[in-house]
Amino acid sequence: VLTKNNAKFIKSLQLKKYRQKEGLFIVEGEKNILELLKSNFKIETLLFSAQFLPKIEKFIKSSDTSIFEVSIRELATLGSLKTNNAGLAVVQIPAEPKFVASGVQLILDDISDPGNLGTIMRTADWYGIQSIICSEETVELYNPKTISASMGSIFRINIFRKPLTDFLLAHKETAVYGAMLSGENVHKIKFKKNAFVLIGNEANGIGEPLLSFIDHAITIPGKGSAESLNAALATAIICDNIYRDI
Amino acid sequence: VLTKNNAKFIKSLQLKKYRQKEGLFIVEGEKNILELLKSNFKIETLLFSAQFLPKIEKFIKSSDTSIFEVSIRELATLGSLKTNNAGLAVVQIPAEPKFVASGVQLILDDISDPGNLGTIMRTADWYGIQSIICSEETVELYNPKTISASMGSIFRINIFRKPLTDFLLAHKETAVYGAMLSGENVHKIKFKKNAFVLIGNEANGIGEPLLSFIDHAITIPGKGSAESLNAALATAIICDNIYRDI
Repeated sequence: VLTKNNAKFIKSLQLKKYRQKEGLFIVEGEKNILELLKSNFKIETLLFSAQFLPKIEKFIKSSDTSIFEVSIRELATLGSLKTNNAGLAVVQIPAEPKFVASGVQLILDDISDPGNLGTIMRTADWYGIQSIICSEETVELYNPKTISASMGSIFRINIFRKPLTDFLLAHKETAVYGAMLSGENVHKIKFKKNAFVLIGNEANGIGEPLLSFIDHAITIPGKGSAESLNAALATAIICDNIYRDI
Repeated sequence: VLTKNNAKFIKSLQLKKYRQKEGLFIVEGEKNILELLKSNFKIETLLFSAQFLPKIEKFIKSSDTSIFEVSIRELATLGSLKTNNAGLAVVQIPAEPKFVASGVQLILDDISDPGNLGTIMRTADWYGIQSIICSEETVELYNPKTISASMGSIFRINIFRKPLTDFLLAHKETAVYGAMLSGENVHKIKFKKNAFVLIGNEANGIGEPLLSFIDHAITIPGKGSAESLNAALATAIICDNIYRDI
């Protein structure tokens, strides 16, 4: 059975401080756990409910991960979800892969909402975008809300955290499309096959130091009264426009 | 000054039960309060910080709302936001307006996430869509997370809560576009000027009883591995496609 110390350790991983110290994060809920099991991420511990067992039996037989059957109530107590009748895994934070410029890639300048970050991962995965490059100030990748919103996409795409000015200086050959409130109509743009799409912070947009790297400022036309669109939504609309062209 | 009873009453409005009993809801944060003040919504009480005062002075002078200056700490204690250095208002839930079919209108079948609902309101407002018709099972309109995500758009668009089967029966003349995982490519569709866009629940999609009302099943093409897109994102992408055509 799960000891009190095990439980305390798992709970501590709700906090960024302990995730970073231990190099571990938490994955919760049926969809995310099933996606995790299909990935190469290293699982240290897997807790599961009796009702979830049939869906993961194959994995359990072939793995040397520590596994524990727990109650649905324990899953909710140990994790961040209000209801979780499937499972919870403690997973190793992977090393950052080597960056390869290829196709369309997203660059996030200080996205601060963990749900937005996870939703952007899910969107990238929908469109087959393989990498997201995050500024150093972007919210932590392994926040439970990010993992939850990514719906498993975090296990499939490459995510980098880099000082963006240096990064863009080193990749001057790639076209940069920046999402702005005043730019070219995204419907009229012929996107290049190799490109960076640069998305700014939810409240402040793209930071001043990055503006000079933008080759094409792009705007999503609207005709109502809202001042702006949510950052994850804007990313998705831009991706939809890119993938009708190329 | 704000009495203990006032404070207790305001706090109680974090719960749906008390919002419905009192016919009141809470609006918090600078952006949402400023949008509220521009609207016709009836404000019962307005709390504000000293630093927010200059931005609302004009309103305060011309209004007979009960107003209280409070500390930033009180704003956080009374409301749902972690940090709120502007204000908090207690606002009357308005009566539902009379429905008028006109232009493109969104129909939400059991959207369950309050953030998604607010983001969809903001998106509708961006595109100039004037009404959203929600199923009776859709999450409550006045949840603090919905208000926050709507970024003031809730004060500008008409929102209805109706039994959708009856509603669609009564509006058979209007074309219904339903967001599905397998349908016509949204990029290829010539949308009608008067139309309903039907969006389903986050986990289960459009409910079976509504499927027969769909004139055009539409799909957002993707080429990656994510199983689906977030419901608010899908709504935004469909709107972007509608407003490039009409």
